[in-house]
Amino acid sequence: MKPTAILLLHCPDKQGIISDVTKFITDNKGNIVYLDQYVDREDAMFFMRIEWELENFLIPREKIQDFINTLYAQRYKMEFQLYFNDEKPRMAIFVSKLSHCLYDLLARYKAGEWNVDIPCIISNHEDLRYIADQFKIPYYVWSIKKDHSNKAEVEKAEMELLKKEKISFIVLARYMQIISDDMIKTYPNHIINIHHSFLPAFIGAKPYHRAWERGVKIIGATSHYVTAELDAGPIIEQDVTRITHKDTPESLVLKGKDIEKIVLSRAVTKQIEHKILTYHNKTIIFS
Amino acid sequence: MKPTAILLLHCPDKQGIISDVTKFITDNKGNIVYLDQYVDREDAMFFMRIEWELENFLIPREKIQDFINTLYAQRYKMEFQLYFNDEKPRMAIFVSKLSHCLYDLLARYKAGEWNVDIPCIISNHEDLRYIADQFKIPYYVWSIKKDHSNKAEVEKAEMELLKKEKISFIVLARYMQIISDDMIKTYPNHIINIHHSFLPAFIGAKPYHRAWERGVKIIGATSHYVTAELDAGPIIEQDVTRITHKDTPESLVLKGKDIEKIVLSRAVTKQIEHKILTYHNKTIIFS
Amino acid sequence: MKPTAILLLHCPDKQGIISDVTKFITDNKGNIVYLDQYVDREDAMFFMRIEWELENFLIPREKIQDFINTLYAQRYKMEFQLYFNDEKPRMAIFVSKLSHCLYDLLARYKAGEWNVDIPCIISNHEDLRYIADQFKIPYYVWSIKKDHSNKAEVEKAEMELLKKEKISFIVLARYMQIISDDMIKTYPNHIINIHHSFLPAFIGAKPYHRAWERGVKIIGATSHYVTAELDAGPIIEQDVTRITHKDTPESLVLKGKDIEKIVLSRAVTKQIEHKILTYHNKTIIFS
Amino acid sequence: MKPTAILLLHCPDKQGIISDVTKFITDNKGNIVYLDQYVDREDAMFFMRIEWELENFLIPREKIQDFINTLYAQRYKMEFQLYFNDEKPRMAIFVSKLSHCLYDLLARYKAGEWNVDIPCIISNHEDLRYIADQFKIPYYVWSIKKDHSNKAEVEKAEMELLKKEKISFIVLARYMQIISDDMIKTYPNHIINIHHSFLPAFIGAKPYHRAWERGVKIIGATSHYVTAELDAGPIIEQDVTRITHKDTPESLVLKGKDIEKIVLSRAVTKQIEHKILTYHNKTIIFS
Repeated sequence: MKPTAILLLHCPDKQGIISDVTKFITDNKGNIVYLDQYVDREDAMFFMRIEWELENFLIPREKIQDFINTLYAQRYKMEFQLYFNDEKPRMAIFVSKLSHCLYDLLARYKAGEWNVDIPCIISNHEDLRYIADQFKIPYYVWSIKKDHSNKAEVEKAEMELLKKEKISFIVLARYMQIISDDMIKTYPNHIINIHHSFLPAFIGAKPYHRAWERGVKIIGATSHYVTAELDAGPIIEQDVTRITHKDTPESLVLKGKDIEKIVLSRAVTKQIEHKILTYHNKTIIFS
Repeated sequence: MKPTAILLLHCPDKQGIISDVTKFITDNKGNIVYLDQYVDREDAMFFMRIEWELENFLIPREKIQDFINTLYAQRYKMEFQLYFNDEKPRMAIFVSKLSHCLYDLLARYKAGEWNVDIPCIISNHEDLRYIADQFKIPYYVWSIKKDHSNKAEVEKAEMELLKKEKISFIVLARYMQIISDDMIKTYPNHIINIHHSFLPAFIGAKPYHRAWERGVKIIGATSHYVTAELDAGPIIEQDVTRITHKDTPESLVLKGKDIEKIVLSRAVTKQIEHKILTYHNKTIIFS
Repeated sequence: MKPTAILLLHCPDKQGIISDVTKFITDNKGNIVYLDQYVDREDAMFFMRIEWELENFLIPREKIQDFINTLYAQRYKMEFQLYFNDEKPRMAIFVSKLSHCLYDLLARYKAGEWNVDIPCIISNHEDLRYIADQFKIPYYVWSIKKDHSNKAEVEKAEMELLKKEKISFIVLARYMQIISDDMIKTYPNHIINIHHSFLPAFIGAKPYHRAWERGVKIIGATSHYVTAELDAGPIIEQDVTRITHKDTPESLVLKGKDIEKIVLSRAVTKQIEHKILTYHNKTIIFS
Repeated sequence: MKPTAILLLHCPDKQGIISDVTKFITDNKGNIVYLDQYVDREDAMFFMRIEWELENFLIPREKIQDFINTLYAQRYKMEFQLYFNDEKPRMAIFVSKLSHCLYDLLARYKAGEWNVDIPCIISNHEDLRYIADQFKIPYYVWSIKKDHSNKAEVEKAEMELLKKEKISFIVLARYMQIISDDMIKTYPNHIINIHHSFLPAFIGAKPYHRAWERGVKIIGATSHYVTAELDAGPIIEQDVTRITHKDTPESLVLKGKDIEKIVLSRAVTKQIEHKILTYHNKTIIFS
């Protein structure tokens, strides 16, 4: 794996952007290994992910950010993020009591599927500590009282840990607590959640049971970024599975778990590979 | 194809039903060629579809209904429907302006995929008359005024036609009018509708556009029986297709049409084969 | 969970089987909670899975086998297996070096998804011992020499262990050795394998790479029983995922792993629930 | 719809291509509305689809081809095709006796889904003439003798018609004749075929029946370009559907037809939109 720079950008659509950015890289002896772009015609917005090899690139990596800022960001009213493929993102996992997503994440991590570090798992319950121990990852528990009276305090402690561990993004692997606006603002579009999805939607408690009562033929899962509005953030990935009237509410839950873990892990893969751009309330997922 | 009788029944779950019904058929020299049953544990209800060959069956087909009534219906508080595979159901199609579902239905009909007659197509617009003409099926138009002032009158005329044509069930192939309670009561769980489905759901106008704005990754279609509550009747069939941020609202509509027509035709197939039982607001779909 | 008996049977199709078997259960005060049957018209064979509650059943569980033998097996030339839902099957897992299937199996086991015991994991390599240790399951390694000179000896030792552990069925969780005919005969249709599947098929080494070269748009996985003919046994479960030209051979392998583990676990679920009947080289999968 | 030029190109991967091509368009006042590129790392080949608005473009459309040739083609050893979105491709359909694909193609054509002309339908049988008549499209029949003694003569006549009608590409909508090398060479990677696909593959006659005998759980369809090697050309699109042991060979055929028509129409859509590049024996499908 040769070192590369990855640039994710968006700006109002204007003639010449692609030409300018690619010329900048090429003139500085960068070999472009990936380029994908997308234009939102409705909003006349331009989105691009471009990746180039740093070997022979004339600008040192620590100065690239400045160059782009100076040369293009103001001119095109561009917002951008710059990553390097040899700098591992650091991922924190939040869990409650269900193990299926956590095992799926850690099995991939352990098998070396992902270019990521997982320095900590955070929970409001002791239940899954044995899994963290199995994988020798520090497990932190802060209990949240039923009246939520200590919630602000808990989140403060969690955010200190996240800061100390230099966490790049957070994965809620079936974490059954609402994330406060404070934490959302600290990690905007960097907290990934997973939840079940139904056609039609069922709001409220026991959704699998209500889907069963309604006789739906398909159940699904949606992974999205956490925003202030509950379960309404930008969608990263979705999938479904077929069910029949012979399924019970219990078998629906089991089939739901299978989709949840796969969909969550696909979303995490895209996050680690820096292939997600968010704009307004939607995502551009580069392939 | 040998003549068969098809019995669809449901009743409170009780020991001995399967044994009793199968014994009745076997004792009368009927050869059972299909049996599938399902027990709803929550409501303790029993559902069964059973099909047997009439050749050598000791009870003449016109008396079977009475026998079942006398022997079992009261005893088990059973509701049942009896069909014969050599009696073709008669299907009416309602359309407005979109052709994709209509073509899909008629192409299958013409290719002999279905054991059904289609004596009439009914519309509130002239637009699709050319398709009815292509397939030489009578096409009836009753315009509905914008203020709906003639709607009751129109439905009366339609219901007379349906009665005259001895229609067994109705397919709304993207028919853009709300069906009145009167017609629903006349054809309870015998009016099949198709509509788009999203995760999450979008209520109101221009749903494909709103799904696009929301950046969903999957769109779908649901076929269901029409009930008094709009788009909330028993679900017969559902399917989905994957989309990406590169899809436009227009391409979503096209992809949606593909799912709609396939899902509707699958639901119609099940209807023609007498493989759907409805109970409360859900369906049992026999395979 | 009330105790039930589960009867899986097949025999030449003949009038009266369903009636006879259900009458036998009902007359002996058994409450039937599941019945599904299937007739293979081509071979005129009848297949059934029937499950009834043992509470109040007049025949003691240890005598049911004899009753069925005496009453029906000879008369209908019936082959059958009888299981009890409160007797846990015992499953052995064979692995080599890849961890994805093993983690998926053990995570479900640990989460209590399955009514099964896993007394041992067997391998030809030390590589995955740490996972067995994580889950505190005995891990046995028998190295097989490159020239296979000790293979017969190794299989003998493995079969002794399997016998000692009263293993009901074996799961090859990406086990990279060919199973000998001896072991296959000892566990006929009780050894479950998983392998990748492609449209079209690619035979030989590096199939993902060859699928990539060929530009296929879909890759899949197939779980099947092991028979003497390699990868040609009765198919239990299959699934696929979409890929694009942007996938690399490496990303195909990762996507393949995801399908493999899900498909294998679905097959194991059906095995544990006694919902698979095999006949000739195909399976009847009850729902 | 504003007029655009669409450039599909591939060449050995080299620094500067994207920059050069985009600069050329931008410098000439072309507004790029689509750019997608792909690099095949294994073969070090570069592929790109780029589309720009012709309004204000300084080079007249009839001279663009020359400009690209002169400026880039030789320098980069580039092969390219140039299209204009306001020039409708002309599509010929070949059929035999099965109607499902033909109806699906014509229903879309008639509904205005596609920017295409269909000046002729060609067959070796009279069977589907009524459909051509329904849609008022000329239908030509050349019978091919059982001994194929007139096949060369028939293809000659067909190719004259195709030439006269200025056909851009051919769709084999379940056309049951092998296309000769002559015709393939005249329309290289411009003849689209559809055929069923199975996991595992079944070669020879009655594949649905053999898939049924083998108990497969999934059936599919593959659309590909026709090459000299039968059914082995570059794959354009694939999809599958789930089946069960309860399906009969007949129901497999019906389910197969549904996938075939949808997969074929998706491939035709990509062809009409100039979104397919072929290289060696695989396709790059732009999104």
